[in-house]
Amino acid sequence: MTNASIITIGDELLIGQVIDTNSAWMAQQLNKAGIKVIRRVAVGDTHDEIWNALDEESSKANIILITGGLGPTADDITKPLLCKYFNGKMITNKEALENVTMLFEKVFKRPMNERNIKQAEVPDTCTILLNKRGTAPGMWFEKNGKIFVSMPGVPHEMKGLMEEQVIPRITGLFSLARITHRTLVTFGVGESLLAEMITDFEEKLPAHIKLAYLPNYGIVRLRLTSTTPEKDSNEQEIDALFKELQEIVKDCIVATEDEPMEKTVGRLLLERKKTVSTAESCTGGYIAHLITSVSGASSYYEGSMVTYSYQAKENLLKVKKETLEKEGAVSEAVVQEMASGLLKHMQTDYAIAVSGIMGPGGGTPDKPTGTVWIAVAGKHNQMTKKFHFRFDRAKNIQLTAMNALNLLRQFILSEEIKS
Amino acid sequence: MTNASIITIGDELLIGQVIDTNSAWMAQQLNKAGIKVIRRVAVGDTHDEIWNALDEESSKANIILITGGLGPTADDITKPLLCKYFNGKMITNKEALENVTMLFEKVFKRPMNERNIKQAEVPDTCTILLNKRGTAPGMWFEKNGKIFVSMPGVPHEMKGLMEEQVIPRITGLFSLARITHRTLVTFGVGESLLAEMITDFEEKLPAHIKLAYLPNYGIVRLRLTSTTPEKDSNEQEIDALFKELQEIVKDCIVATEDEPMEKTVGRLLLERKKTVSTAESCTGGYIAHLITSVSGASSYYEGSMVTYSYQAKENLLKVKKETLEKEGAVSEAVVQEMASGLLKHMQTDYAIAVSGIMGPGGGTPDKPTGTVWIAVAGKHNQMTKKFHFRFDRAKNIQLTAMNALNLLRQFILSEEIKS
Repeated sequence: MTNASIITIGDELLIGQVIDTNSAWMAQQLNKAGIKVIRRVAVGDTHDEIWNALDEESSKANIILITGGLGPTADDITKPLLCKYFNGKMITNKEALENVTMLFEKVFKRPMNERNIKQAEVPDTCTILLNKRGTAPGMWFEKNGKIFVSMPGVPHEMKGLMEEQVIPRITGLFSLARITHRTLVTFGVGESLLAEMITDFEEKLPAHIKLAYLPNYGIVRLRLTSTTPEKDSNEQEIDALFKELQEIVKDCIVATEDEPMEKTVGRLLLERKKTVSTAESCTGGYIAHLITSVSGASSYYEGSMVTYSYQAKENLLKVKKETLEKEGAVSEAVVQEMASGLLKHMQTDYAIAVSGIMGPGGGTPDKPTGTVWIAVAGKHNQMTKKFHFRFDRAKNIQLTAMNALNLLRQFILSEEIKS
Repeated sequence: MTNASIITIGDELLIGQVIDTNSAWMAQQLNKAGIKVIRRVAVGDTHDEIWNALDEESSKANIILITGGLGPTADDITKPLLCKYFNGKMITNKEALENVTMLFEKVFKRPMNERNIKQAEVPDTCTILLNKRGTAPGMWFEKNGKIFVSMPGVPHEMKGLMEEQVIPRITGLFSLARITHRTLVTFGVGESLLAEMITDFEEKLPAHIKLAYLPNYGIVRLRLTSTTPEKDSNEQEIDALFKELQEIVKDCIVATEDEPMEKTVGRLLLERKKTVSTAESCTGGYIAHLITSVSGASSYYEGSMVTYSYQAKENLLKVKKETLEKEGAVSEAVVQEMASGLLKHMQTDYAIAVSGIMGPGGGTPDKPTGTVWIAVAGKHNQMTKKFHFRFDRAKNIQLTAMNALNLLRQFILSEEIKS
């Protein structure tokens, strides 16, 4: 099977100042195309480290994709190194220079400097991959039957090059395996409990089909992967197993395709032509952000009141001063009043309200850090639930948002069962 | 100099279903402790790949940190493999078993199964690192003078083990180099233009001090790193250079320490005892999320109105129907009215209002996708600015939020110059 290794270059990766999101995206694209990623390696902007990584990874994989180290500044040494590695000499590429010139004239609207012009130079031993989104071109090299592709580390530039040039070229060259995934999204049941439910199923899987567990913030995704030669591709087999898996864990299924919770909930609302609004205290707008990160959310999402203070809760959501004083902001009564106030104000079919203590400070003996109340309201019913999360601020916020969206999902579905 | 390599294990990393945030955090901690990370490698849940990675990385580094593959399910093969690699046999660790039992009784509140009990087994050739936050213990091995530490991949479990056990043990064993960083956060000037401003400064840097450029969403962080033996540590040298650097780029400095924009803005407000609220259309709560991700934001942040629809803008922010109809939601007049309405409603010192078209759809010939209007208002003044971003939805949202926060920062500072 054709396989690939991804090398990312940059000191920033090794001191932890940036999180590498490129590799995950690249791995997804390669997998979809039937190329197995066997390793991902990050090295610094250091000559020997980069050189050794090129040697080592090309001894293991057929395709070596390289990102980063192509910027215009002195700490970026990848291009001259690749020139030496592939025994070339630097030449100015006419098309690349035209592209850089155009970008400065039309997009950046400022004069080019010498460093920018140098961006159009490439080794004469590569095939240039024109980068319409930035000044550093992609470079395609071949050596001892292996393919090496160097791309800039700027995510949208790398993505453009991958989609438009790298993947089409690779799929044209290799006879690739077919990798088929089916992903089931579950919520609320832990990894080991799920594993116990699935033991028998897992044991009888054929060798070319693997099951993986991917836990993340209350969600566990169960992924079946079938790897077969292109000609043997048989989707019926994996579909039948996927159906069987759904039957086994049916009580905790959120979605039968790999999509985030906010997309699943959005789809439910869209299908029913319903709308929702949110009232957020402790999550501070994060639920709204998740919902609106889905393109087209304006069809079902009206807006959010992020009421971080007591006063905002009173003024905007008409939560009673007595309730706040008697029960405290983190209480069932307050989230109920927040949800009712919001429904009236926003005139949506559903409302979500959350209030909690995310930490690190703010906890009390009877309301420790991590205590959260969530209310979901419809026109005729309300549903509330108390949680106690035990993590850091960022994770507590994410878990609250996930549980709030899941509660809305359950509320919508339960209304249908009743009616 | 003592160096380390990080191995992350899991098929999910190689098919791109999860983004590896652990490695970046671990690299930060190691750097702070004076340990240089020279490589990061991700491999799948495959025997030979893991085995080879252990061999290879230990031939390059003194310390090998390993995360992942320790879960209770069948796809997690790291523990038995480590047992074989270090010639041990599996034994149940009493303390680890007590910990697992306690977690199930007190925290998860459900019965243990056999897989859970197996989590307390470790190779007899390791020193166990008790994991109070989860069921999989950390394991410390030594072989041929190299240190290997295996930790679970769950971020907060790994972080707890690193902070409480791994870092203290390592710093106790090695005489470490001193790595000192100084980071300058700049905004609004591109990497190559900055590089041109800094050329002379960069050329005269001594060999043990490096300068790196870290661009991210309009921000470029400039990082000076000094690496010296512990005894030669001389902070004055890097501090003097850092001051010089600040002088060169003084017009675009946001902060003189490595902190996110939302923290810088929060600090400005806190120091001045001022408050802010936000009215968000296109960013859908993301600005509120950034502000409230900083612990203690309740001292200066009142809340947000996420008004995703026309109606919400009219009802909540009292934007005039005529203005919306005549100018459209994405217009200078509308963000001005949003900001004024918000200031009245929320009674804060400052208000931020944004409205734009984030894509992929929604653009028109005179308001193409990526058009954004931002208004910042104080009690006596307003400031508006138009932007045109050219990226995907997620990046457009992030750029809008960053620019909105930066505009508030500039507004606050400009008020002081005036008064």
